[in-house]
Amino acid sequence: MNGEKLSMSAGRLEALGDGIFSVVMTVLVIELKIPHVAGNSFHNFLSGLYEIRQELFCFFISFIVLGIIWFGHRMVFEYISQTNRYFIFLGVLFYMIVCLVPFSTKFLAANTLQWFAIVTYGLNLSLCNMSLYAQWTYGINRPALHARTIPTEIKKEARFLFLISPVLYAIAIPFSFFFPWVSIFIYFITPILYLIPSKLDKYLP
Amino acid sequence: MNGEKLSMSAGRLEALGDGIFSVVMTVLVIELKIPHVAGNSFHNFLSGLYEIRQELFCFFISFIVLGIIWFGHRMVFEYISQTNRYFIFLGVLFYMIVCLVPFSTKFLAANTLQWFAIVTYGLNLSLCNMSLYAQWTYGINRPALHARTIPTEIKKEARFLFLISPVLYAIAIPFSFFFPWVSIFIYFITPILYLIPSKLDKYLP
Amino acid sequence: MNGEKLSMSAGRLEALGDGIFSVVMTVLVIELKIPHVAGNSFHNFLSGLYEIRQELFCFFISFIVLGIIWFGHRMVFEYISQTNRYFIFLGVLFYMIVCLVPFSTKFLAANTLQWFAIVTYGLNLSLCNMSLYAQWTYGINRPALHARTIPTEIKKEARFLFLISPVLYAIAIPFSFFFPWVSIFIYFITPILYLIPSKLDKYLP
Amino acid sequence: MNGEKLSMSAGRLEALGDGIFSVVMTVLVIELKIPHVAGNSFHNFLSGLYEIRQELFCFFISFIVLGIIWFGHRMVFEYISQTNRYFIFLGVLFYMIVCLVPFSTKFLAANTLQWFAIVTYGLNLSLCNMSLYAQWTYGINRPALHARTIPTEIKKEARFLFLISPVLYAIAIPFSFFFPWVSIFIYFITPILYLIPSKLDKYLP
Repeated sequence: MNGEKLSMSAGRLEALGDGIFSVVMTVLVIELKIPHVAGNSFHNFLSGLYEIRQELFCFFISFIVLGIIWFGHRMVFEYISQTNRYFIFLGVLFYMIVCLVPFSTKFLAANTLQWFAIVTYGLNLSLCNMSLYAQWTYGINRPALHARTIPTEIKKEARFLFLISPVLYAIAIPFSFFFPWVSIFIYFITPILYLIPSKLDKYLP
Repeated sequence: MNGEKLSMSAGRLEALGDGIFSVVMTVLVIELKIPHVAGNSFHNFLSGLYEIRQELFCFFISFIVLGIIWFGHRMVFEYISQTNRYFIFLGVLFYMIVCLVPFSTKFLAANTLQWFAIVTYGLNLSLCNMSLYAQWTYGINRPALHARTIPTEIKKEARFLFLISPVLYAIAIPFSFFFPWVSIFIYFITPILYLIPSKLDKYLP
Repeated sequence: MNGEKLSMSAGRLEALGDGIFSVVMTVLVIELKIPHVAGNSFHNFLSGLYEIRQELFCFFISFIVLGIIWFGHRMVFEYISQTNRYFIFLGVLFYMIVCLVPFSTKFLAANTLQWFAIVTYGLNLSLCNMSLYAQWTYGINRPALHARTIPTEIKKEARFLFLISPVLYAIAIPFSFFFPWVSIFIYFITPILYLIPSKLDKYLP
Repeated sequence: MNGEKLSMSAGRLEALGDGIFSVVMTVLVIELKIPHVAGNSFHNFLSGLYEIRQELFCFFISFIVLGIIWFGHRMVFEYISQTNRYFIFLGVLFYMIVCLVPFSTKFLAANTLQWFAIVTYGLNLSLCNMSLYAQWTYGINRPALHARTIPTEIKKEARFLFLISPVLYAIAIPFSFFFPWVSIFIYFITPILYLIPSKLDKYLP
């Protein structure tokens, strides 16, 4: 019976994920409408751009955040090399939430300073991180799913990196009812935090 | 002549499939319209969401079902490692039916309680499972296409898992003419059945 | 200097192709409009379907043809394992023509019995086959690009399979000016020819 | 500690890139509207095509340019086999700029002879090349990221090939204010330059 055990390598789930991320990232741009430029003066061009400033801003933020989440996803699979049924169900759940990002981005672009759009967007991004963290936690606690041992420092740092975004978004959300600009500012700042060198870097080439 | 025989590994067909599944899953969301929120009260937000409740519900169901079908597809290729012309034709047929899921989802979202939309949706999902089952049956009956022997228990359980959905959908379809809510409820319940531990699990890590 | 020679495996070009085919195939369905069903009688449903009969028909034909072209593409790379700059340029040209298939499909669906749509569609599909054949011919004539020797029988049969479609489409095109139904019938029949067992089959598992 | 160092192979980043390029290339065509043909004379067909001449022209240019950039991207990863956090951030930045190409293509198609569209398009394509060049420069200067030594000649030729487009586009941009046709002509000529045999060719099969 043991010889019949499947290896269930994680490669296909990663491939599905890379496909989903690449479509989701590109869909963000399909949603961008080209600006209508009334005349050919510089002023006309600027007002054309100004009209789509919210779409452009939300596109940039979402693309960078999706890049960071993809990076997290990629790191999870650096450690976890096998899958089972529950791990794949967690993966599909994660992909489902990622697929909703263009939806909530478009919603935020159309209602940038409205609390309901800010809340929707923050919830969506938080759920991305939290479902990825669930996958990670499930994976590292099942020895059959990972080949190499995972240093405690990595586990700590990963938990910090997965949960810092949801915490910041949880701060941004109540602000949306009173000072929506503050929420938007927090959404803008959060991805930049991930550029700061972290303890993980010493494990990378 | 034997030395010229091609290996025809299944990898490219899997890659095409992962691409198709990732696009199809994302397309489900592109179809989602962002809700129009008339004012910024909580009530306004809720009515905005309420307006797109059918789209959201159908999106969730279809995404989860596609996730399960992808998982089935992935399992098929855990056993079948080679392809030939007919196996690939069955694969293209399967992908064609999968590609129609966003179409029938949109149709159901626009006519949730109408028998014709319920029938179309149920037929589409049933055909997904049945064409995948045809691929599986073709594959396991041609020794050239699989490297490892396939335990009888796996064959039995796989047949059960492939055919339980079409059977349930076949029950849902006649209900649509009299009690459409029952059909929708069956569509909602079916994917949950796949979360129940199955005999396959002992072959997975 | 020889030690610095790159291997330039064809894997990335195949991956780009699988991506492009999966998006193109899915895009065919995004173009499908859901039928408007006026009432909930069976008659209403049929007239809803009848309204989109041309879209559905063109979708099926194009999907199957794309599946066959993908299969041809896959077979090319079964023999050709390395690339160089010109091979990649031919590949990009081929992908460009493939990407136009949803465009000419939509054009045919909107003008099914008009000569200009039939000609455009036939030209597009012929160019797909011919540019793939150019890639194949370039590849098999450069020993650096393939590892295994290619039997003469394969070369002959491949040429036949690559060029039978353009020949049939070249017959269909003049018919479009007088009996457009004949052209459409030829478009319908052509993919079925590829299901007939061919001499290639004995090289496959 | 050293044994815990991750290998961080570049494969996933390449897969994400192949996905993004395939979606971006296909999205160029989704944007193409099918021509409206008023009657079924040859004249009518030609005027239908004439109406979308700008879209068709911009589609061809953008597709070929994207093909060349993809080729550059592919060559970068022929040498660079490992990644780290900063290399991936540069990669995400590059993909973000690539994703904007359908946007600026559509903008150019709608305003072909207007300076603002010509400038936007030229900037977008220049940034593609420059961000890819940044990735390349970062990669070749970190020995941990590449396995093989990179000949000086390759470095020189690569710099030339990466920067020739931005230089030509920088020439095209000022022309757009006075002789927009000249800019368009430069955009048309630039991709053709990449067909000329280069010093890189001797390193390829």
